[in-house]
Amino acid sequence: MSANRPAGVVIEDITPSIDCGRFPIKRVGGESVVVEADIFSDGHDELSAILLYRPRDSEHWSRTPMVCLGNDRWKASFTVVQIGEYEYTISARVDDFKSWQAKLVKRLDAKQDVSVDLLIGANLLDLAAVRAPEPDFRELRDLAARIRKAGSGGVAVATSPATLELAGRYADESLATSHTPPLRVIVDRERAGFSAWYEMFPRSCSPEADRHGTFKDCEAWLSYVADMGFDVLYFPPIHPIGITARKGRNNAVVCKEGDPGTPWAIGSSAGGHKSVHPSLGTLQDFRSLVSSARNRGLEIALDIAFQCSPDHPYVQEHPEWFRWRPDGTVQYAENPPKKYQDIYPLEFDSDDWRSLWEELRSVIQFWIDQGVRIFRVDNPHTKPFSFWEWVITTLKSDHPDLIFLSEAFTRPKVMARLAKVGFTQSYTYFTWRRTKWELVEYITELTRTELSEYFRPNFWPNTPDILMDYLQEGGRPAFAARFVLAATLSANYGVYGPAFELCVNTPREKGSEEYLNSEKYEIKHWDIESPISIRPLITRVNQIRRASKALQQTNNIDIEHVDNDMLIAYRKWDEEKSEQLLIVVNMDARHPQAGWVTLDIESLGFSGQSSYQVQDLLDDRTYVWTGPRNYVALRPRERPAHIFRIITGTGALPGAMRT
Amino acid sequence: MSANRPAGVVIEDITPSIDCGRFPIKRVGGESVVVEADIFSDGHDELSAILLYRPRDSEHWSRTPMVCLGNDRWKASFTVVQIGEYEYTISARVDDFKSWQAKLVKRLDAKQDVSVDLLIGANLLDLAAVRAPEPDFRELRDLAARIRKAGSGGVAVATSPATLELAGRYADESLATSHTPPLRVIVDRERAGFSAWYEMFPRSCSPEADRHGTFKDCEAWLSYVADMGFDVLYFPPIHPIGITARKGRNNAVVCKEGDPGTPWAIGSSAGGHKSVHPSLGTLQDFRSLVSSARNRGLEIALDIAFQCSPDHPYVQEHPEWFRWRPDGTVQYAENPPKKYQDIYPLEFDSDDWRSLWEELRSVIQFWIDQGVRIFRVDNPHTKPFSFWEWVITTLKSDHPDLIFLSEAFTRPKVMARLAKVGFTQSYTYFTWRRTKWELVEYITELTRTELSEYFRPNFWPNTPDILMDYLQEGGRPAFAARFVLAATLSANYGVYGPAFELCVNTPREKGSEEYLNSEKYEIKHWDIESPISIRPLITRVNQIRRASKALQQTNNIDIEHVDNDMLIAYRKWDEEKSEQLLIVVNMDARHPQAGWVTLDIESLGFSGQSSYQVQDLLDDRTYVWTGPRNYVALRPRERPAHIFRIITGTGALPGAMRT
Repeated sequence: MSANRPAGVVIEDITPSIDCGRFPIKRVGGESVVVEADIFSDGHDELSAILLYRPRDSEHWSRTPMVCLGNDRWKASFTVVQIGEYEYTISARVDDFKSWQAKLVKRLDAKQDVSVDLLIGANLLDLAAVRAPEPDFRELRDLAARIRKAGSGGVAVATSPATLELAGRYADESLATSHTPPLRVIVDRERAGFSAWYEMFPRSCSPEADRHGTFKDCEAWLSYVADMGFDVLYFPPIHPIGITARKGRNNAVVCKEGDPGTPWAIGSSAGGHKSVHPSLGTLQDFRSLVSSARNRGLEIALDIAFQCSPDHPYVQEHPEWFRWRPDGTVQYAENPPKKYQDIYPLEFDSDDWRSLWEELRSVIQFWIDQGVRIFRVDNPHTKPFSFWEWVITTLKSDHPDLIFLSEAFTRPKVMARLAKVGFTQSYTYFTWRRTKWELVEYITELTRTELSEYFRPNFWPNTPDILMDYLQEGGRPAFAARFVLAATLSANYGVYGPAFELCVNTPREKGSEEYLNSEKYEIKHWDIESPISIRPLITRVNQIRRASKALQQTNNIDIEHVDNDMLIAYRKWDEEKSEQLLIVVNMDARHPQAGWVTLDIESLGFSGQSSYQVQDLLDDRTYVWTGPRNYVALRPRERPAHIFRIITGTGALPGAMRT
Repeated sequence: MSANRPAGVVIEDITPSIDCGRFPIKRVGGESVVVEADIFSDGHDELSAILLYRPRDSEHWSRTPMVCLGNDRWKASFTVVQIGEYEYTISARVDDFKSWQAKLVKRLDAKQDVSVDLLIGANLLDLAAVRAPEPDFRELRDLAARIRKAGSGGVAVATSPATLELAGRYADESLATSHTPPLRVIVDRERAGFSAWYEMFPRSCSPEADRHGTFKDCEAWLSYVADMGFDVLYFPPIHPIGITARKGRNNAVVCKEGDPGTPWAIGSSAGGHKSVHPSLGTLQDFRSLVSSARNRGLEIALDIAFQCSPDHPYVQEHPEWFRWRPDGTVQYAENPPKKYQDIYPLEFDSDDWRSLWEELRSVIQFWIDQGVRIFRVDNPHTKPFSFWEWVITTLKSDHPDLIFLSEAFTRPKVMARLAKVGFTQSYTYFTWRRTKWELVEYITELTRTELSEYFRPNFWPNTPDILMDYLQEGGRPAFAARFVLAATLSANYGVYGPAFELCVNTPREKGSEEYLNSEKYEIKHWDIESPISIRPLITRVNQIRRASKALQQTNNIDIEHVDNDMLIAYRKWDEEKSEQLLIVVNMDARHPQAGWVTLDIESLGFSGQSSYQVQDLLDDRTYVWTGPRNYVALRPRERPAHIFRIITGTGALPGAMRT
């Protein structure tokens, strides 16, 4: 007979659970995990269900009872505290005492004789007592005895919630159904969920034009970046750059004397992925910079670009890690008809893949050893998912504070898979989403689908590769609007500066997303004091983000109706709902736009036509609004957006402010 | 190093797949299974994916290539032929030759030099050749040689689809990703998917009033039932009925002399679940009836009600199979405050559960041995899911033609689970869904969600337990309308007769769903020749069902718009779309109703305002309709419904019929 003894209770459709539990969900310390499941059994018995959770390295499971929402759906939540990995599962059982108590109450209501029923209940308590230590053992036995005596006192004991609670504590757990194996949560540190990135080419940091910048020069920039409110300073690759097939300015196939080449063509006779470009300084200089940055609340993030210039030492030392062509050359990167002769891809599935993978892990470990904890990974979608799962999992088991940002601008399912296999944050399509409805649809997908459990968006209005058409056309007001959108739609965002705050918007040619005279191929000298700079706006918005819990998470967002498609409005709140923000952005970079915003004011605690205040955190001006519909007007050159705090407290308005 | 060599291709989100593959989907022989999955890999290589399927007892996998629908979603389908169980899975791989060919074409388009590329392609063909038998070995080597020679001839060979096809046939399958374990399909015989049930109490079959009917009497009813077009004749339990605590007429707690008791109080000194009630005749009589019925195209279905009267032999022989109370009595069935003193539930999770389960399986096996292949299971939701999964799976492995109908009128997730664990068909909420929008919502849930893959609805307008309010109020026109709805919305339906065709509609009391003088507690004598009978309608509709493939499946249905909420209209079609039916039912049993039906005529092959014919299969009258909107009027006493065949052929209308 192959059947097992009846398991009794069924646990189905647990959420969150990614791909049948194959992948973990993600949280940062202090966030909660809301778990639901369909839980039911045959028959009409009462059930009990418990949510179990623990840090993975703990022996002890914490327990919290689940409650039934109706239609056999149960729910409970827990909060993750320490970073690393948590496990959670559900245990459910037929609750004999609860079932008995429920039936007893119905019988009493129907004025039926319950003398035998009381005996049954007393027996159930005696069974529970056997599993109880003192003093609960004695208590359960005493309750059983009192129920057996019947009379009205016994009935009161039998129907009491306290009796139910005590009996439940010593239920026979061997008859419970548990979901196995447990589901997993990756718990990251706070910056994984709330970060403001600033991308900068260190070679452009020299105070003198035309001199190659150094790490020492970068020290002088730390205040500039930190004072704007950024907390991650990300450098493109800092390694030696190849000479063979080096690209010239504006991606010219042949470079000119003195052209520095692209930092992503990694490796030369000066070294490879574990070396520093000699013109930037020494490894010691880099470590000093990491330390200085940290003192200013800035973390240096490095670029992991696993590819080689033809001059990389690997090419000579490990020819087996590359794909060789029948003519005896190495296959360079290409996307026909485009050719990248200055870059050799690594062959991740060569026969010698194990030694390659180990070496690449050691590259990341090398920079961890220099004090780096955040990595932006270049084109992860052109390397095997299984490589990333292995390398991220094994490195994070020793360093749970690591953050990996996936730079995969590719198909949706590939981007999602990279997040599933371990990337902490991900670049997104925000960079190209221009209209209100494109943004609304995308935000809905990111925050209202399963993606919200494991895919942490990082919104970039520009990158060295992508100067979107809207920025090209709209200039400074467009940069301001896109900045507010990125920094308030997503808790994680980044800009490629100083090109961003200086509103650099000239493409290489019409229809191109590439910058003219792109910093990828040349050293720049930036006039950061230019009056065009939107640095004041950036600084203010970052101050607001640091003060507002509602902007420190991404998923609590509602799009609000505005009767003008050039205005987008959305409400954000913190986990405790102690703070409500309303952001309104004018997406028209050329013309003033106005419209009526409709709020669900009942959900904010207001009624019908009551008045309340909204305070624009950008300039602290306060407005009195009345009822659900209120008028907003934004002039792109003066004010790109409102970031309103909705004042929901109970206090009456000061008389002077009433309309 | 724990990582595996890069698997290359990811296969995600396969549909259909029930609870991560834990449960099989269901089909009947000849139906197709459409399989989709997200399939992708890192990088930009071309992929190939194959759907594999086989009867579970076969060594050989059949293969069909999948095609990409866009957004990394792939699709293919297969048809199940033999009954029993099938398996299906997906295998996908990076297709080196296809990737190479695609890049080659791009290079040729860009007029780049391809001499080295041709050598690479020739090498790929040589590798494929090693895996090929003659004559394909030689063919692949020859193709490789021609490509190596280059020149325009080599390019033509390299870019040809035939070369791709041949190389693909000998790809290195060891590098493919396969989904394991395979997913499963239960393949049932045709009647599982298309059946018309007629429930009848054999004790009411006597030609003389007040005499207990016998199986021999039932023989005379076979023509009546078969001529109406039913194909399953289902009997409530035919076993000896207990005497202790026997219920009287109208469920009286104390019965009177001569009251027959309810057939569901199974077991007496005359025997239990493997015995026949002595008044019905002998086991031999039953086998004769099964055989006579089969000769008329009728299958006898028996009721499996695993519960006992206090007089059942099990109570004495196996006291361990029951729950005993502290007062030395057996716990009877109850749902406080209701008590069913005439029925003892079996204790499925007693310590002796193994012997009980084996005995119960032997009960079903006993009736299989008498020639029964269809079972209606009473209240399966009060017995463990794991019992049903075991008993149905093991019995069907020897008898794949078995059909089990789940009589679980309970919560949605419990009903779904019973279907998942193996029930072939399921009773549904149709019995209570009254309004148009209730029906539309329910049909949508049954046919457009995952339920459609494993939950086969069986629509019953009445049962001995349920006389819905609409039938009580509406009388004969209501019975006609509900009949057409049941028989055309669902390929499986059933009625409890003769009460149904005779439009018996008096409840025990106002607000009750119970019949007055219910046949459950007494022997009836039916006047089947009464003029009130809707037997002619039933006969006609069953003829239409047998002639129309569109009505022999449940899932191909579109609700069509009618501008009158008392009229429901829906279109049904067969798998080949060779037949299109439009059913319109007047749900108002008292008043004529009319309205305009809107059809998506473009999808039917008509344009704008073209004219076409619709033929009402109920009376063969043909109407000429024009354009998408057409007028329909139904008078409840004359015509409850239209069952239109939409004549979509290309032939012009006969001149006389043009409007």
